[in-house]
Amino acid sequence: MASDLALYGYWRSTAAYRVRIALELKGLTWENRPVHLLRDGGEQHGAAFRVLNPQELVPALLDGERVFTQSLAIAEYLDETYPEPPLLPVDPRGRARVRALALTIACDIHPLGNLRVLQQLERQFGATEAQRAEWVRHWMAQGFAAIETLLADNVATGAFCHGDTPGLADICLVPQVYNALRWQLPLDPYPNVQRIHAACTELEAFRTAVPELQPDAPVAG
Amino acid sequence: MASDLALYGYWRSTAAYRVRIALELKGLTWENRPVHLLRDGGEQHGAAFRVLNPQELVPALLDGERVFTQSLAIAEYLDETYPEPPLLPVDPRGRARVRALALTIACDIHPLGNLRVLQQLERQFGATEAQRAEWVRHWMAQGFAAIETLLADNVATGAFCHGDTPGLADICLVPQVYNALRWQLPLDPYPNVQRIHAACTELEAFRTAVPELQPDAPVAG
Repeated sequence: MASDLALYGYWRSTAAYRVRIALELKGLTWENRPVHLLRDGGEQHGAAFRVLNPQELVPALLDGERVFTQSLAIAEYLDETYPEPPLLPVDPRGRARVRALALTIACDIHPLGNLRVLQQLERQFGATEAQRAEWVRHWMAQGFAAIETLLADNVATGAFCHGDTPGLADICLVPQVYNALRWQLPLDPYPNVQRIHAACTELEAFRTAVPELQPDAPVAG
Repeated sequence: MASDLALYGYWRSTAAYRVRIALELKGLTWENRPVHLLRDGGEQHGAAFRVLNPQELVPALLDGERVFTQSLAIAEYLDETYPEPPLLPVDPRGRARVRALALTIACDIHPLGNLRVLQQLERQFGATEAQRAEWVRHWMAQGFAAIETLLADNVATGAFCHGDTPGLADICLVPQVYNALRWQLPLDPYPNVQRIHAACTELEAFRTAVPELQPDAPVAG
């Protein structure tokens, strides 16, 4: 068992959340090394973390002495290095579909509502909290609408995004739904998204990875 | 040779530009089907294109009757379906590095300066052209700084982003540099980015894919 895996993340980072699910689905033992994104101006901007990731973003995965960044690249690395259970189907068309679903979230929803973007909206345009929420919900609504259509219109959709086992797309979907709930986006228009989210959250790997169970999560009051 | 490949793109879309380079590197024959992002409120929002991609974004690749979206998913599909020359190294660590470089651009630079985001900044915050330019350059400068460090600090960097043959990271880098020049971002702080960009633009595949040579590009005045 690879006990030299260490994940630098933050409890509420949806990108770190994806990697936690991947690690748990693979049944790997890993060490959780929290990086506090808000303390002292953000520990991700400190010299200690910048050595691991010059992008100053979580997550970063340490495997022995090698560091890996970008959650989807990390997930594919884990899938290639620890093949069971697979996170991608075997056929190139299916793999492309799963990757496209994952990238729709990872490129076109998540980065637009990321902490640094909200900070820049405030800095550059004086965006209020309500305006930042409107911004985040705008991109989430657009993205979820597309994903809902891609799920509803394709026979490859099963109990999960692609077939009846969880994979790379589900790993991205569940944290994004978590974020949608946090921002109070109504999910009624997305029944397939809701159904698959519910199926995922019945699995131990997804349950273990939830933000509130991480060591750096605030204690519920 | 696959003559049933058709790419729906837009001459200046950097995501479509990536796929054009991938198609050319693979030596594939493909049909260019332009989608005008600005005409009539954007052809990507029309019913004809929404059937291909409910995300209403280019590119979309048609391979026979199957449609593929998300430029990186398309590139990986092409790499798995037409393996030569490869766009990714063989070792999982190298693959993870190349994917992380590609995703740094595809997730954390490009989507933040995309047309729809600039339109939303104008709509929601009344952002002026100068403010939109400042916004775009802010994210490009952050992203290029990280990429420059990742390139400079790693022995795997060669004539190209990873070794001495072009691959998935270079496919993303060149269109992003094109975009940086368009937005007049000074590139002096990024010597490795500049060097690799120059090496790529000497190759026929990269030359053929440039925006100004596409059928939908405006005729130079």
